[in-house]
Amino acid sequence: MTSKGKTITLAHGNGGKAMHDLIEKTFLPALDNRFLEALLDSAILPAHEYGLAFTTDSYVVQPLFFPGGDIGRLAVSGTVNDLAVAGARPRYLSAAFVIEDGFPLKDMAAIVRSMKIAADEAGVAIVTGDTKVVPRGKADGLFVNTSGIGTCEFRAALSPLAVRPGDRVIVSGTLGDHAAAIMKARGDFPVSFEIESDCRPLSGVVLATLERFPPPAVRFMRDPTRGGLATTLVELARSSTCSIEIDESALPVRDEVLALCELTGYDPLYLANEGKFILVCEENTAEDILAHLGSRPASKDAAIIGTVTDDPLSRVYLNTKAGGTRIVDMLVADMLPRIC
Amino acid sequence: MTSKGKTITLAHGNGGKAMHDLIEKTFLPALDNRFLEALLDSAILPAHEYGLAFTTDSYVVQPLFFPGGDIGRLAVSGTVNDLAVAGARPRYLSAAFVIEDGFPLKDMAAIVRSMKIAADEAGVAIVTGDTKVVPRGKADGLFVNTSGIGTCEFRAALSPLAVRPGDRVIVSGTLGDHAAAIMKARGDFPVSFEIESDCRPLSGVVLATLERFPPPAVRFMRDPTRGGLATTLVELARSSTCSIEIDESALPVRDEVLALCELTGYDPLYLANEGKFILVCEENTAEDILAHLGSRPASKDAAIIGTVTDDPLSRVYLNTKAGGTRIVDMLVADMLPRIC
Repeated sequence: MTSKGKTITLAHGNGGKAMHDLIEKTFLPALDNRFLEALLDSAILPAHEYGLAFTTDSYVVQPLFFPGGDIGRLAVSGTVNDLAVAGARPRYLSAAFVIEDGFPLKDMAAIVRSMKIAADEAGVAIVTGDTKVVPRGKADGLFVNTSGIGTCEFRAALSPLAVRPGDRVIVSGTLGDHAAAIMKARGDFPVSFEIESDCRPLSGVVLATLERFPPPAVRFMRDPTRGGLATTLVELARSSTCSIEIDESALPVRDEVLALCELTGYDPLYLANEGKFILVCEENTAEDILAHLGSRPASKDAAIIGTVTDDPLSRVYLNTKAGGTRIVDMLVADMLPRIC
Repeated sequence: MTSKGKTITLAHGNGGKAMHDLIEKTFLPALDNRFLEALLDSAILPAHEYGLAFTTDSYVVQPLFFPGGDIGRLAVSGTVNDLAVAGARPRYLSAAFVIEDGFPLKDMAAIVRSMKIAADEAGVAIVTGDTKVVPRGKADGLFVNTSGIGTCEFRAALSPLAVRPGDRVIVSGTLGDHAAAIMKARGDFPVSFEIESDCRPLSGVVLATLERFPPPAVRFMRDPTRGGLATTLVELARSSTCSIEIDESALPVRDEVLALCELTGYDPLYLANEGKFILVCEENTAEDILAHLGSRPASKDAAIIGTVTDDPLSRVYLNTKAGGTRIVDMLVADMLPRIC
């Protein structure tokens, strides 16, 4: 095989023979499912009784491979998680690739295999796709878009409008692992310890939790990705008519992530997560939900971190370890681009 | 307003304040619909009785603005058309943007407005979205991904397997207009005449045609985009158990496109279209369908261009104007990258 045969070229994006080869030899065997095999531009899917959830995300993370995952695992997990926290069972994903001319075929194959593994973990099928190739210097290796369809599983909606004063805020595990893993993988901050991204599909634990504690006992869920926990809570407060108070001492953060934050000046509240969710629930189910989450590997470090209050300013307050209180706002300056 | 306020910056991609501003000031007012306004990561949609069609496409066209359209109009039309030719009514689209740092905000706003106009023409709502920003030199202005959901409207499936010897092949209008418009817009071939892209949503004419001539009278439809009519027919022949014979003299091609092809050596059979479909139907409805298409502006230049034969080699044959016959194959060499 010549080196020409080992990289993606512009011909892989022209709709002709090379693209058909790429799809038939690299994508179809890896993604293996009957919907995709029809090879039409639209996958035809059975419909469902309840409503549908529909979401999309493009992934531009650098580097493409990092401890704990790669852009493929991230692209499946991120989209699956957006559906799950909406109270929907993820069913079908699309996968669209924008590839830079010269990208190694073996990396492409590894990324597609990784997507299939994550899709299997989440119980979804990648049923339709698209491939574009752009000239060298016009992209950065690979961008992946995944869109997803899920079936709504609960009659009551998870919504910021369901949140009430007195409700508890739970986070499913340690904060900032994904961002810290990416920072380390970029080599900007040479540290000796290992940090893995938390990147994983959460649909299993999220749906099991919602089945046991269906809405309206659980009011709202969200995955705190770009912008971190802080941005997610600020968005929630603004969309509700309440405020939120969280306790710094209750936030689960790994020692390695704290160390990296001290070194870099980043704040774990704003660091991206790719395998964590927040959950707001009525006060008297919080301990039961916490026990349930603690018994599952994906959420074993879950913690109750705060309370919804009747302060009408729709703000987020942090009670600091030092005993003070400060207002938490959205991210303003750019912290860490290309995290997902 | 400083020049800083007039371009997209990395801060527009970080999940924080600048991104919220971009979404709230530029995207939401332009795309205006109640599903999108919930601003959650997943849009919640009503489900439907029949099956769903699901498709995705990334758009990397250069230039972003061209005669007859822009990347936004293209991104809506292309995805809507993939759904329509599957026999589905396009309902919901997602829109995901990968933007290069420094991209002009006014271009972004113009493209989103253009998406809304095309979405209105097609009767679809853009219900969920995503924005990523990458540093300068890591993308090429703007890439757009649209994924789409449609509701299947017919009990019988449109399928290559429904095609039978004797069936007629119809094309809905002139070939190669989109590719020719892009070539001219790039300025590689200075010609004096105007050519506009045919880029448009086809769901209106496609569904009206299928309602009047439902499957199995119509066997199969497809939009011949990248790779052109030739590649679409070769794919169809390979997926069926028949061959296809087309007549060069019957192919509708504008004089301007023919002139550009003579100048450049391109073959109109392989040129991309973004507002045309092919339709295979049973022999005795072909003239009625042609008359129906001829009465509608979007398909006024429709023509019967060929016949399905029982040749078991699954090939496409072109009867040339010179009286010969040649085998038509898929595109091998790259003709015109970044056409869509």
